Amino acid sequence: MTEPPEIPKLRIVLVHPQHPGNIGAAARAMKTMGFSDLVLVAPREFPHPNAEAMAAGAGDVLAAARVCSTLAQAVGDCTRVVATTSRARSLSLPVFEPREWAPRWASGALGRQVALLFGSERVGLTNEVLDSCQETVSIPGDPRYAVLNLGQAVQVLCYELRVTQAPALARPAPDHEPVEQAELERFFAHLEDVLIGLAFLDPDNPRLLMRRLRRLFARAAPDFNEINILRGILTAVEDRIDRPPA
Amino acid sequence: MTEPPEIPKLRIVLVHPQHPGNIGAAARAMKTMGFSDLVLVAPREFPHPNAEAMAAGAGDVLAAARVCSTLAQAVGDCTRVVATTSRARSLSLPVFEPREWAPRWASGALGRQVALLFGSERVGLTNEVLDSCQETVSIPGDPRYAVLNLGQAVQVLCYELRVTQAPALARPAPDHEPVEQAELERFFAHLEDVLIGLAFLDPDNPRLLMRRLRRLFARAAPDFNEINILRGILTAVEDRIDRPPA
Repeated sequence: MTEPPEIPKLRIVLVHPQHPGNIGAAARAMKTMGFSDLVLVAPREFPHPNAEAMAAGAGDVLAAARVCSTLAQAVGDCTRVVATTSRARSLSLPVFEPREWAPRWASGALGRQVALLFGSERVGLTNEVLDSCQETVSIPGDPRYAVLNLGQAVQVLCYELRVTQAPALARPAPDHEPVEQAELERFFAHLEDVLIGLAFLDPDNPRLLMRRLRRLFARAAPDFNEINILRGILTAVEDRIDRPPA
Repeated sequence: MTEPPEIPKLRIVLVHPQHPGNIGAAARAMKTMGFSDLVLVAPREFPHPNAEAMAAGAGDVLAAARVCSTLAQAVGDCTRVVATTSRARSLSLPVFEPREWAPRWASGALGRQVALLFGSERVGLTNEVLDSCQETVSIPGDPRYAVLNLGQAVQVLCYELRVTQAPALARPAPDHEPVEQAELERFFAHLEDVLIGLAFLDPDNPRLLMRRLRRLFARAAPDFNEINILRGILTAVEDRIDRPPA
């Protein structure tokens, strides 16, 4: 067996994992499929002997895991932030099955640094976390009980990504490089400021409109040039807002 | 979401499993993918609270698991007995990857009752057990560390079998319906008016910026609701533009 050609980077992000054993199982799942970039957002208990026990031969992946207190720190440098869920959500992010999503990732279409988020064992991913995501991967299972264990969900995704890796030659030349998440967040903050200045946000539910706009721009996955244009427009609007009313 | 059509029977056989937690994890992995026939050959400890804990919502699969003292009892009624391994064996049984093997199973070519054997955590499947097998499925992994946890190996196989045999599962109805082109053109015309009002378009090349913005919003494929929001923002900006300079 030869090594596969160079592939896009993948970061596995566990958001608020509750059981240390699952962190170790996730590390092992990753290593068996050739992945190593593990980030933990506010784990309940870590490090922990159960994590080490379940990691088995993947102790190096576990030891190199980065612990962050916020999601923003975990994915700030990512070009695409992708939620994993086991059920349809009301929020209409695009939903892919792993087999559809793997070639998207492998083609490089999602940029050079992709984050795959797994929610906590108890509550999954919250709507607040989903607001930071641009698309969703959902593992198809028996609808009567499709609740995979965290470590097993990581295993399925990593397996699918390894098996489906496209050969480098088949990749389209990237003419579009989505910006990092932190850049996108700065744009959203700017946009929100301007909409407040325009008195456009619904004072009764200011977050609803921003959520819709986030979803819209997430689908577009703007590149650096486009973000510059959009922020230039916002600045031009701000110049008008600052003028006193006629 | 509809149920997939009838599929061949699959029995998961764990041969000498050492850790009860892994038995529970295997039961859960099976149930998430719609399988329920679990047989344990001479488990070291079973039943056990750890098995129940790891089974989570798959307690019914665990409770119905049959315990045998010999492999012969476990697979006597099977039409095909298939070993899972993580590495090539000297024994020259045919070796399939899960993605190749799943259609073999789903087609019915292996008969009405197929057993998939998983070895113990420590030694895998012994040569004696392999003597009772007719073919092998090997999960491809990173050759540097391809040792999947037992529960995770069961998960990968059950996932592969479900995905490969299931017809495209019914997708949730899309709640995102991109607008017609004419609607999009009205939005672009409105946007261009506002950008001219803001003196934001490059007078030397006014079409270049619009082309970039068209490309951005084309990727997003806005729906009617989103177009309404965007045009509402443009109208709010126009109100400011119409005011005389300070």
